[in-house]
Amino acid sequence: MASTSNLPEGVAAAAFPDGTKDYKPLRSTKQDIKKPHISEFPITWDNWYKHVNWLNTTLIIFIPLAGFVAAYWTPLQLKTAIFAFVFYFNAGLGITAGHHRLWAHSSFKARTILKVYLAAMGAAAVEGSIRWWSRDHRAHHRYTDTEKDPYSVRKGLLYSHIGWMVMKQNPKRIGRTDISDLNDDAIVVWQHKHYLKCVITMALVFPTIFCGLGWGDWWGGFIYGGILRIFVVQQATFCVNSLAHWLGEQPFDDRNSPRDHVITALVTLGEGYHNFHHEFPSDYRNAIQWWQYDPTKWSIWIWKQLGLAYDLKQFRQNEIEKGRLQQIQKKLDQKRATLDWGTPLDQLPVIHWDDFVAESKNGKALVAIAGVIHDVTDFIKDHPGGKALISSAIGKDATAIFNGGVYNHSNAAHNLLSTMRVGVLRGGCEVEIWKRAQMENKDVSYVND
Amino acid sequence: MASTSNLPEGVAAAAFPDGTKDYKPLRSTKQDIKKPHISEFPITWDNWYKHVNWLNTTLIIFIPLAGFVAAYWTPLQLKTAIFAFVFYFNAGLGITAGHHRLWAHSSFKARTILKVYLAAMGAAAVEGSIRWWSRDHRAHHRYTDTEKDPYSVRKGLLYSHIGWMVMKQNPKRIGRTDISDLNDDAIVVWQHKHYLKCVITMALVFPTIFCGLGWGDWWGGFIYGGILRIFVVQQATFCVNSLAHWLGEQPFDDRNSPRDHVITALVTLGEGYHNFHHEFPSDYRNAIQWWQYDPTKWSIWIWKQLGLAYDLKQFRQNEIEKGRLQQIQKKLDQKRATLDWGTPLDQLPVIHWDDFVAESKNGKALVAIAGVIHDVTDFIKDHPGGKALISSAIGKDATAIFNGGVYNHSNAAHNLLSTMRVGVLRGGCEVEIWKRAQMENKDVSYVND
Ligand code: HEM
Ligand code: HEM
Ligand SMILES: [Fe+2]
Ligand SMILES: [Fe+2]
Ligand SMILES: [Fe+2]
Ligand SMILES: [Fe+2]
Repeated sequence: MASTSNLPEGVAAAAFPDGTKDYKPLRSTKQDIKKPHISEFPITWDNWYKHVNWLNTTLIIFIPLAGFVAAYWTPLQLKTAIFAFVFYFNAGLGITAGHHRLWAHSSFKARTILKVYLAAMGAAAVEGSIRWWSRDHRAHHRYTDTEKDPYSVRKGLLYSHIGWMVMKQNPKRIGRTDISDLNDDAIVVWQHKHYLKCVITMALVFPTIFCGLGWGDWWGGFIYGGILRIFVVQQATFCVNSLAHWLGEQPFDDRNSPRDHVITALVTLGEGYHNFHHEFPSDYRNAIQWWQYDPTKWSIWIWKQLGLAYDLKQFRQNEIEKGRLQQIQKKLDQKRATLDWGTPLDQLPVIHWDDFVAESKNGKALVAIAGVIHDVTDFIKDHPGGKALISSAIGKDATAIFNGGVYNHSNAAHNLLSTMRVGVLRGGCEVEIWKRAQMENKDVSYVND
Repeated sequence: MASTSNLPEGVAAAAFPDGTKDYKPLRSTKQDIKKPHISEFPITWDNWYKHVNWLNTTLIIFIPLAGFVAAYWTPLQLKTAIFAFVFYFNAGLGITAGHHRLWAHSSFKARTILKVYLAAMGAAAVEGSIRWWSRDHRAHHRYTDTEKDPYSVRKGLLYSHIGWMVMKQNPKRIGRTDISDLNDDAIVVWQHKHYLKCVITMALVFPTIFCGLGWGDWWGGFIYGGILRIFVVQQATFCVNSLAHWLGEQPFDDRNSPRDHVITALVTLGEGYHNFHHEFPSDYRNAIQWWQYDPTKWSIWIWKQLGLAYDLKQFRQNEIEKGRLQQIQKKLDQKRATLDWGTPLDQLPVIHWDDFVAESKNGKALVAIAGVIHDVTDFIKDHPGGKALISSAIGKDATAIFNGGVYNHSNAAHNLLSTMRVGVLRGGCEVEIWKRAQMENKDVSYVND
């Protein structure tokens, strides 16, 4: 396929129309792609253990459990507690600012030193390599809520939180995405190739040595700064896949599951404005209001001031307001459809002026306003302007009277009026003819007062 | 004028088209209507005291001031305090449920005993007779914010609060309204004729005797139960004319000044949902949500349960929701007009398919979507789906690709796209012809890949 633009050959998607390439594992894999995957078989008493992804289950459930047990015998020192908290925050940023906003969404650019820091902290969070994480995450954005979404909330809140990791997934099911930019990023490729070493060093060895050499608390560093801190970071960031698709408002789009909620934001270092994020994924912000909690955004902004980050992407406020406006409009239209707006004009009988006048004299309280005849019989006693005024308009054209001649009726009065429609005047000009005739003092047969 | 309906002759408005009769004072008046009124002269150092309505000023400013001074020597007993508070509440109801909702707006009907109670309590509030009060109030509704509004907030917050009473007003300026129903109400007419006696008895004598006979606190009854209680009731209910036209939201109509605010509601026994009230004046409620503070509504409702009130008027929820919806729609349309929605299609140049393809090959990144040509040159590097995919669509018709063929773009993406419009395709069917030709494997000259 010839390049259709002046861009370098390399960036054109080869596999048009799908536009993506298969995710080729950089390391060899033992899995035989021809054999049906275990997830294609129903779970039974005999095979359930084959469905479980034991490696992931160990990493996100068994080890934390063991950590809780060990904590029973390990006193928590204040310094270690403070270290663990600061480290939790940094590891969290590794995921939110690094894996997520920098690599998965390219929402800003970072100097090498910042990239190394983010990759190291991302490893300390123990949530998979940048490459693996971003591939899944891009699939999640592109195929949100569908079968191809790796952590679709449509399969349940628990599934989107950890089920998708604890149970084996068919890799072929997950939507394909283009990660050629990540394959070109040396740090990403290096972290992916040496992932296990990175994790052990950053998540466990580093906190142990830091607290050990710092204030002699080797065990505390390992248990609190390592294992339990990992658990907290993991559970917190997993909430972006579960809570952020389940709790809150949908100010920009309600066709899919992402939602905005301050609680999710508090838990996830600011990733809680997820409806916004799915709509504007390459915006470096998740919260757009200054008073909303988005420390990830604040960190990126500070890095920019320090010269470590640049090219922060931001959607125009105009586009954001357009999205918000259209969503309100959509809700409004839905609401409008549930209300009674009176019989449409084209479904009303056409009535002759003479018949209108005659019927008005026969006990029906009819009033003509703007060419439409209204039956106000039941309303006279409720008229806020009193019985006398409304009665004086019966059998007449009260258009001008209603619209300011006597009283400029409110919107509410116009709405109410439309529910009283019973017919439209034939021709529609009789009123004008009659008025002109009166003015010219001619004899008009149907004058009734 | 012959009656145009089957209503009793009496209720037809005689003075069509204005529909109202002059306010004829029931008692003789000394004022000479031919002499110009003092309010028609500018205020000067020489005549300022002639501008002041000394009677009103005494009633609403001097007497309360004297009361505050006297309170210094009058110890406040608990029983008197409780009595004064309960009396304040009842006198307040006299205005809000009696003068306002029952008589001025006929929003419900009351048995004689309830009417007598409300007329008595209304007198205890010292805010003018029901007849005078309702006439002004109807003018206020009918001519809101205009010159004919007796307490138009357009003349300043202080004017709408007490200025209109403290300074002499030209009675001819105030809009005329129909109060024939009040002239037919024996209690209203009686209270009007004997207004001064009613006030002295109810506002001063009654609390003095009550506290005196009850627990020997004659002075306390007079000062706290009488004078200062009057002051509080007056200032509180005056807020309906000032605060309620100044503070809060306008969920139903923003053409005039009335506003909804909980603070006003708290001060005025529930009259704070004033935007609603001006739109639906004959609704016996001011607050329509159960959790909003409207003790006047609650009282009317309880009287109904006791058989003392009946025919409580209420606008249909449908009409209320319509009003609210239209107001939101109005705000939305105003907002919409301030946003950039891209060049309107009819202002775009019409471009030939061949020229579009040619230009795309000459370095301009043009993409055709839905018959419109878009220049995405500056956007390629920012595309959240990556450079490769968007580049692969250059010089092509990407309608299907953009709308789900590769990725079903969000609303935000559609909005953004519209800001990139540069032309429309001539004819508009070329795309279809080209596609059909390709399918049929015919040779088409402008195939470019
Ligand atoms: C024919 C159907 C009519 C309907 C449905 C109607 C409805 C209403 C409503 C809902 C109000 C409350 C205030 C507002 O919403 O603006 C009102 C007030 C009023 N109407 Fe009508 N009206 C009708 C006819 C008339 C006519 C023919 C006249 C005069 C000849 C009239 C004179 C007034 C006046 C003077 C008020 C002001 C009352 C006040 O705010 O205190 N109305 N009307
Ligand atoms: C021509 C103008 C285009 C504009 C203005 C545009 C705009 C956008 C925007 C704003 C997003 C963010 C997600 C969303 O809002 O839905 C997005 C995502 C995406 N776009 Fe485009 N796009 C264009 C063309 C294309 C083309 C031609 C393709 C494919 C050939 C494409 C493929 C994608 C994909 C796969 C994503 C998903 C990325 C993700 O959510 O992670 N786009 N695009
Ligand atoms: Fe998501
Ligand atoms: Fe994301
Ligand atoms: Fe008002
Ligand atoms: Fe009112």
